[in-house]
Amino acid sequence: MSALEKEFLAYLHEIDAYRELITLAHWDLRTKVPKKGVETRSQAIGILSAKVHELQTSDRMKHFIDELKSTETDKITQKAIEESELIYERNHKIPQDEYKAYVTLQSQSEAAWQEAREKADFQLFQPYLEKLVDYNKKFSNYWGYKDHIYDALLNQYEPGVTTKMLDDVFPALRKSLTDLLQKVTEKSTDTNSSVVLGHFPKNNQREFAVHVLKQMGYDFEAGRLDDTIHPFEITLNLQDVRITTRYDENDFRMAVFGIIHEGGHALYEQNINPELARTPLASGTSMGIHESQSLFWENMIGRSRDFWRTNYETFKQYAPDFLQALETEQFYKAINTVSPSLIRIEADEMTYPLHIMIRYELEKALISDEIKVKDLPELWNKKMVEYLGVEPENDGEGVLQDIHWSSGDFGYFPSYALGYMYAAQFNHTLRQQLDVEAIVQSGDFTPITTWLKEHIHQYGKMKKPLELLQDITNESLNPDYLVQYLTEKYSEIYGF
Amino acid sequence: MSALEKEFLAYLHEIDAYRELITLAHWDLRTKVPKKGVETRSQAIGILSAKVHELQTSDRMKHFIDELKSTETDKITQKAIEESELIYERNHKIPQDEYKAYVTLQSQSEAAWQEAREKADFQLFQPYLEKLVDYNKKFSNYWGYKDHIYDALLNQYEPGVTTKMLDDVFPALRKSLTDLLQKVTEKSTDTNSSVVLGHFPKNNQREFAVHVLKQMGYDFEAGRLDDTIHPFEITLNLQDVRITTRYDENDFRMAVFGIIHEGGHALYEQNINPELARTPLASGTSMGIHESQSLFWENMIGRSRDFWRTNYETFKQYAPDFLQALETEQFYKAINTVSPSLIRIEADEMTYPLHIMIRYELEKALISDEIKVKDLPELWNKKMVEYLGVEPENDGEGVLQDIHWSSGDFGYFPSYALGYMYAAQFNHTLRQQLDVEAIVQSGDFTPITTWLKEHIHQYGKMKKPLELLQDITNESLNPDYLVQYLTEKYSEIYGF
Repeated sequence: MSALEKEFLAYLHEIDAYRELITLAHWDLRTKVPKKGVETRSQAIGILSAKVHELQTSDRMKHFIDELKSTETDKITQKAIEESELIYERNHKIPQDEYKAYVTLQSQSEAAWQEAREKADFQLFQPYLEKLVDYNKKFSNYWGYKDHIYDALLNQYEPGVTTKMLDDVFPALRKSLTDLLQKVTEKSTDTNSSVVLGHFPKNNQREFAVHVLKQMGYDFEAGRLDDTIHPFEITLNLQDVRITTRYDENDFRMAVFGIIHEGGHALYEQNINPELARTPLASGTSMGIHESQSLFWENMIGRSRDFWRTNYETFKQYAPDFLQALETEQFYKAINTVSPSLIRIEADEMTYPLHIMIRYELEKALISDEIKVKDLPELWNKKMVEYLGVEPENDGEGVLQDIHWSSGDFGYFPSYALGYMYAAQFNHTLRQQLDVEAIVQSGDFTPITTWLKEHIHQYGKMKKPLELLQDITNESLNPDYLVQYLTEKYSEIYGF
Repeated sequence: MSALEKEFLAYLHEIDAYRELITLAHWDLRTKVPKKGVETRSQAIGILSAKVHELQTSDRMKHFIDELKSTETDKITQKAIEESELIYERNHKIPQDEYKAYVTLQSQSEAAWQEAREKADFQLFQPYLEKLVDYNKKFSNYWGYKDHIYDALLNQYEPGVTTKMLDDVFPALRKSLTDLLQKVTEKSTDTNSSVVLGHFPKNNQREFAVHVLKQMGYDFEAGRLDDTIHPFEITLNLQDVRITTRYDENDFRMAVFGIIHEGGHALYEQNINPELARTPLASGTSMGIHESQSLFWENMIGRSRDFWRTNYETFKQYAPDFLQALETEQFYKAINTVSPSLIRIEADEMTYPLHIMIRYELEKALISDEIKVKDLPELWNKKMVEYLGVEPENDGEGVLQDIHWSSGDFGYFPSYALGYMYAAQFNHTLRQQLDVEAIVQSGDFTPITTWLKEHIHQYGKMKKPLELLQDITNESLNPDYLVQYLTEKYSEIYGF
């Protein structure tokens, strides 16, 4: 290894040291910090984040990239250079004064959005959103794109996936999902989710969920589980991958399925090849692939009949009396009910992608100047009726429900729907190669985790999302697997 | 405020941002981190700590100091310059290659000490300790001193206190303490500490201790209490001052008095003038003054008869059956027993300073070349017999018991004894000015905290330790108050 290559790796380790301590500070802010400590902590995060930005866009970084790109280096180094160049270009193309003004706007906008949502008053947020959209259009032009301006934004979260690809798959997927939904709605008297609701002590929920995390192969010596308000997975380093959850003592589903979901994210990170540690490659390859891992575990394993046949007796050891009386089958159906609703994060797996399509269509139209910010509430409500058959009573439960736009995150939402499609596509291949039924019935799910590690997790950012998909499933993005999975599962549950 | 002064303050805020996130990483390492995450976290801490060192000794810092020293600035800025200059000089005077070699030696020595202590084999540690002593002698000469080489080391932890001052007070204090101890030993059949030992569930201990912390005025919105192995107080920022403790379910004294002790440290930091925030002045002024605050609360309040008269009924609400039967008086005597023992951290308040004097005399003699490292075990054991009348059976419970020397901390131990003397001296003045008995009986100790804040806490590092002592008590260091406090308390308990 050349002296320059070693120097470059040491430079990446330096950047990663900042990343690790800043990440820890974020974890602490969301799980442990006392109220009054927040302000100074946030200032410290701001100062050190600016240092990271400096290191990522320095002349020294440019020198490493230019020199090492054309040199024979280790394969990991080569990928790390490519990733560093992406980050360099992305940051460097934005003039520094615009970047600073944008960071300020982001925090102001989040505060404005919070207030607007509480008061269900879109006009309070509108001027901020207009500026955020303008900045994102400007940035997209700085970054450049081939076919569609929205590609530049999408590319931040799902490199390689284009607006065209989404426009190719979403309409057909929408048609299939609304058809399925129609069938479910006709039969909806058959299932009842309320039978699983009732008081279930937090500690018991936690103990059962820990049991499941262990079945999945989550390594508690390389992670931990804490309480928070908005659950997340967070990677401090590859051997310290933490998850968080929130408990509703009257609805165990929030924490139990939430923990399985975050556990799916965590397995991805815990199983990345240790040789990638302390480089920008030591992370999931995209938001969508990450989401495929959490959704696979949450829905395709955690809400499967096999899972509950295996775990129901154990579950009952922790569950309160009212659940003791339920048969596995009744329980299984109750945790798999479908019903159109207003709030994305409360949606079931069949209606969820429809929520995403609404956001995708609106933000694409905003960025390409086809609609105006002021028209959003009306358009939102119209689409909700059209796609889901429900109408918000106010903007708080409508267009203002999600935080993403307030922090300028355009191009992010599609990853959620991509995650469902990827998950179903991986699930299909996995079940061809492994006897998932037998594995789940054995109560030790690690053969599944090992398969995911071998095919997905280990690579970190060494493979791009569509490359990974192609290598594993021998085809590109195909929404049919999601439709097939949902049709098989729900036709059986609802009997159509 | 001049542009340069503003720039300097921003520079201090930058250093403080690093300090805050590194401190958080230390807190996490000692309370939350999963086992496997430690290695990478430690590397990250190392990288960012080196950055802090760079910032503190940079040409830019030198420029700020030189320019601002002779300029009219805000008083806080002036003190911040003085403090920054001390840090600059201390770090700058050591050649960089020696500093690096020393940091490596420190971590090797800690590992060697751990093994040596476990095996009770001093020879395993001896070569490391010899090098550490050599470095500390060298550093002392770089730093310089007026009268005694040991002053240079002492000055790191207790600025202004000299070897001469310690040599003036320690012999008389030793004589008084051994006389007192003699009297106690003659009467020792009268008290029995074992009556307070027995199973006391952790959560109940915690709830009672939280009750006491609230009485003291500890602000839980600006701090939190966690579990750890070696308890400590840690300041992330002035509004996030955390304490930790360890529970022994068979001896509640460890956690309850430990929490009061750490709470005393925490009150100091929570009550520093917010105008000093994010500068090197936003911390206790010395190790000894810090220890005076923890010892005052732990012993002079927490182990007082008034405290237990007030709190015993509350305590019983949390305490197990075997404690319900004890009278307050019997309980009070049981938690105030005196008995010479081998281990410093388990010593009572009367014998504790004797443990410190032994270490002080040995390290002073090491640094001034009067004794050799290889002779330490023998000298240690001899002094233990001479000062405390007990003899270690091996070096593990003797000369190897403390971690300090293994990390090169020479000059630190005296602060513990100074803390006792300061505490007694402050306690004397405080009781002249406040009706402490009435305050403690009221169950709301905040008038005491307010007094401490006004006279000690608020100043942070704005006043040096002896300046603080003089301003409050109108005299310099005077060990008589400690002797007087111990004599009054224990003559009454032991009846001599």
